[in-house]
Amino acid sequence: MSTPRMSVLVKRAVMAALPLAVTAAFAAPPGASAPELAYQAGGSPLAGEEMHQNINPKAPPMTKAEFAQARQIYFERCAGCHGVLRKGATGKPLTTDITLERGTEYLKTFIKYGSPAGMPNWGTSGELSDAQVDLMARYVQQEPPTPPEYSLADIEKTRKVLIPVDKRPTKKMNKYNLDNLFSVTLRDSGEIALIDGDSKQIISIIKTGYAVHISRVSASGRYLYVIGRDAKINLIDLWMEHPETVAEIKVGLEARSVETSKFKGWEDKIAVAGTYWPPQYVIMDGDTLKPQKVVSTRGMTVDNEYHPEPRVASIVSSHYKPEFVINAKETGKIMMVNYSDLNNLKTTTINAAKFLHDGGFDRTGRYFFVAANASNKIAVVDTKEDKLAGLVDVGKTPHPGRGANFVHPKFGPVWATGHLGDDSIALIGSDPVKHKQYAWKMVASIQGQGGGSLFIKTHPKSKNLWVDTTLNPDSAVSQSVAVYDIDHLDKGFVRLPVGEWAGLGDGAKRVVQPEYNKAGDEVWFSVWSAKDKQSAIVVVDDKTRKLKAVIKDPRLVTPTGKFNVFNTQHDIY
Amino acid sequence: MSTPRMSVLVKRAVMAALPLAVTAAFAAPPGASAPELAYQAGGSPLAGEEMHQNINPKAPPMTKAEFAQARQIYFERCAGCHGVLRKGATGKPLTTDITLERGTEYLKTFIKYGSPAGMPNWGTSGELSDAQVDLMARYVQQEPPTPPEYSLADIEKTRKVLIPVDKRPTKKMNKYNLDNLFSVTLRDSGEIALIDGDSKQIISIIKTGYAVHISRVSASGRYLYVIGRDAKINLIDLWMEHPETVAEIKVGLEARSVETSKFKGWEDKIAVAGTYWPPQYVIMDGDTLKPQKVVSTRGMTVDNEYHPEPRVASIVSSHYKPEFVINAKETGKIMMVNYSDLNNLKTTTINAAKFLHDGGFDRTGRYFFVAANASNKIAVVDTKEDKLAGLVDVGKTPHPGRGANFVHPKFGPVWATGHLGDDSIALIGSDPVKHKQYAWKMVASIQGQGGGSLFIKTHPKSKNLWVDTTLNPDSAVSQSVAVYDIDHLDKGFVRLPVGEWAGLGDGAKRVVQPEYNKAGDEVWFSVWSAKDKQSAIVVVDDKTRKLKAVIKDPRLVTPTGKFNVFNTQHDIY
Repeated sequence: MSTPRMSVLVKRAVMAALPLAVTAAFAAPPGASAPELAYQAGGSPLAGEEMHQNINPKAPPMTKAEFAQARQIYFERCAGCHGVLRKGATGKPLTTDITLERGTEYLKTFIKYGSPAGMPNWGTSGELSDAQVDLMARYVQQEPPTPPEYSLADIEKTRKVLIPVDKRPTKKMNKYNLDNLFSVTLRDSGEIALIDGDSKQIISIIKTGYAVHISRVSASGRYLYVIGRDAKINLIDLWMEHPETVAEIKVGLEARSVETSKFKGWEDKIAVAGTYWPPQYVIMDGDTLKPQKVVSTRGMTVDNEYHPEPRVASIVSSHYKPEFVINAKETGKIMMVNYSDLNNLKTTTINAAKFLHDGGFDRTGRYFFVAANASNKIAVVDTKEDKLAGLVDVGKTPHPGRGANFVHPKFGPVWATGHLGDDSIALIGSDPVKHKQYAWKMVASIQGQGGGSLFIKTHPKSKNLWVDTTLNPDSAVSQSVAVYDIDHLDKGFVRLPVGEWAGLGDGAKRVVQPEYNKAGDEVWFSVWSAKDKQSAIVVVDDKTRKLKAVIKDPRLVTPTGKFNVFNTQHDIY
Repeated sequence: MSTPRMSVLVKRAVMAALPLAVTAAFAAPPGASAPELAYQAGGSPLAGEEMHQNINPKAPPMTKAEFAQARQIYFERCAGCHGVLRKGATGKPLTTDITLERGTEYLKTFIKYGSPAGMPNWGTSGELSDAQVDLMARYVQQEPPTPPEYSLADIEKTRKVLIPVDKRPTKKMNKYNLDNLFSVTLRDSGEIALIDGDSKQIISIIKTGYAVHISRVSASGRYLYVIGRDAKINLIDLWMEHPETVAEIKVGLEARSVETSKFKGWEDKIAVAGTYWPPQYVIMDGDTLKPQKVVSTRGMTVDNEYHPEPRVASIVSSHYKPEFVINAKETGKIMMVNYSDLNNLKTTTINAAKFLHDGGFDRTGRYFFVAANASNKIAVVDTKEDKLAGLVDVGKTPHPGRGANFVHPKFGPVWATGHLGDDSIALIGSDPVKHKQYAWKMVASIQGQGGGSLFIKTHPKSKNLWVDTTLNPDSAVSQSVAVYDIDHLDKGFVRLPVGEWAGLGDGAKRVVQPEYNKAGDEVWFSVWSAKDKQSAIVVVDDKTRKLKAVIKDPRLVTPTGKFNVFNTQHDIY
């Protein structure tokens, strides 16, 4: 599977997986700020911005209405890979020097049929009509309009404290085993499901931002932070009799990451969210989401070239210092941001590699591993010393999620990642003391069942290593999961047909994201079909690798990420 | 003199003081980079940038040639106050939402006649013709073109090592008393004069960038760093038999500041320069100027609003840590940048106030005082703790240069600043140990001889406090200097007619910048006339306050700042 062609197929699959529902979500996002509404409407709150639009005399003409429609489609379909300002990232740059030279006919062909280099076939796949393909071909020859900035005041205007701190419980008021609660992203319904891990019952469905990207749990385990791709954060109080949103805020136009302070003395005190647009992060009070500081990530890449749109990818919370580890995608820089004194803000900016994406800690919590996906590298940060420990060549387009930690019989403690772009699983030595010769080196590259992997997982109490292949174009692969015996990796994987086990009708039934329960004896998988199809969560007994339970419910629309409270709280993976 | 009208007159004087020679200098700057040349020529190395120009359908039309000419005039005349992107700073914002509403006729009137709020009368002063006024009125209704970025690679391309390190002397090869050498800015000739402080002889005239802003001396006293407003840096080796430029580089389009590492163990190792455009700073090797790291200053202001053009004002070198203290004007933030590990760059960003300008240390070297001129405040930074120690209200538009330190009979150690906008001199307590009740407070505001002060100075061995009033519109004031007895400040100042003492013919003869010799028994003043008039340097005996010497030479064209090597090296002021 690890041919060059693989990555193309995988990328197409990634793009095709983007839901159509986003159109409606962005047309009039609930809680949109004034500048955003103006932007969405095709006007602009920024001086002169409107004049950047639709006025390139060299580009084919567009009406204002066409421009507005194209802008919306671009934001939904294209910006994720090409960037809002079209400087390129996963996708190629689409600046007007390039697009004008290509011309409308070339661009139309490209958009309609895609390309071997990874551009999806938007037209022939039926995602865009011929008229829309024509529209987009003309649009990308216009100067990209710059979306509005979000100042702290803009952000604060979107904040709602639904239940003030003094009206919240002072102790846990419900009988749930919160440690084993799962917060499950319902991607296309703009909700999360809280599922009781013990009974497998849905406790509640909570309205959130669009396409929730992650859930994070505060240090005490009380507060759940949920962020949508539309940059809306819900703060959910798990101590309430019926856990629900107690505060919400919209921190920008597009976002991926939220995190909460975990350092001793700072538990539950601070929250942080990173945005794709504007390229910045905002530090907030942990219990009210009141924004306290906004910091731009615009600046130089590791190559010392200015980048106008360095999007904030993942954020984790240091266990060694009162710091957040904030990863700027396009600059390839990792920022260790000390939250103990916001007026005298200490930051260590670590040069890693482009483009930073997702990652997680080693099992000691000291070292942070993060994928630099365009460089096919994993960067390792020492969060005690605040410096780069290593930069490790792995396979093509690593995508670890938070990765998986286990003790290898030969190499000692390792951290593992799967890949989007090939079928390998890379093991990196993570013990610089007792296994120094292996530390920050790829000690093994294991054959997996295919590319298109999003998540890999194990648990300290388990001997299994689970690797999904969610975005693999072969449905037999995407609907199953590979599992390895950690002590006998050389024996290869066993394929478990988890999608089939769900017992659903037709649908994509992609198996995504293994997540352990607190005890480490169950693994939960989402079986993810489209919004109008039935999905499910499949629970597998970790010891026997047999089906243990299937959670099916009409409310479980497009489940993807699942976040076990205890494991998320304590960075166990 | 401290009427509201004062500040207007002062501002006009400031603007009028800008030399015409800049036009020629920028038309084809020597050593300009490829992107800059393209920018100067009206084209653009940036994708699509050209289309931002001259295409606003709502604005009055301009030809491409007119646009190019207007851009040049704007850069020379307007950008200093209004900013390259016209977001406003000392001058008001000139974004097109504002200018289009005003319209051409209004703008023409404004540009020609000026305004009571401080806009110079460009037309009636003869600086711009009616045709040029019309041109500029139309230009500011167009979208501001964005000048090119400068990556590290762009900067490196401009670097020349004229004498490699291994070809330089290993010890001092001349007999000059380098400690008492003066590096004198010859503003409009694009040169500096090296003057032997003992003999008062000119040792050499060295070609530099345009309108040298400052000279800085490396920790050992060997290297002299000179930066022009055109962002060209000359590195001069004072150990050579005939001190001359050994390396040069152009770090951007416009700059004000250069500094060198002074912390123990880092002497002479690192240099840093801050640019107005692009808004960034570059860290270089101290002996070759090889650029190692470029860091953008774009980001949030102290009010948490994004600013696209936070220009780097002053930079000083910490004595307590391997850090530079870098002041970003428009954001009002002070960055303590640790240069000991550029790949894991530690920075403490301190919230101060807008707009940061110039400043200096207290006499212990621990506390740094910097003017926040739009806030009429002085910010005090503790460079040992890396945090804000105080934010002190002073007079209107403080302009300290590096300020003056002395021991006040009542208040103990104080740091003093003059003001551009009023005639006061503010004393701020600077001893938080033995005079804690006065620390970081304005303990006195002394009446001066007028507004328009640029520099204030004393010396540890002196009892005199000297205050220039260079930009005062009254020639009797601008051509003289006020001197106070530090032990009897209540007795007021004595006015010394230093301009008259120079014995020159007609000319502006503005007295600017008192600078002590190493011994602290002489004060040097520039008597600054236009490029086509004779200027001079007047040396006053500090004890007797009598004329000691006049340095006149046809080569001393428009002398302004003077930098005594020993005092600059050791931050003595």
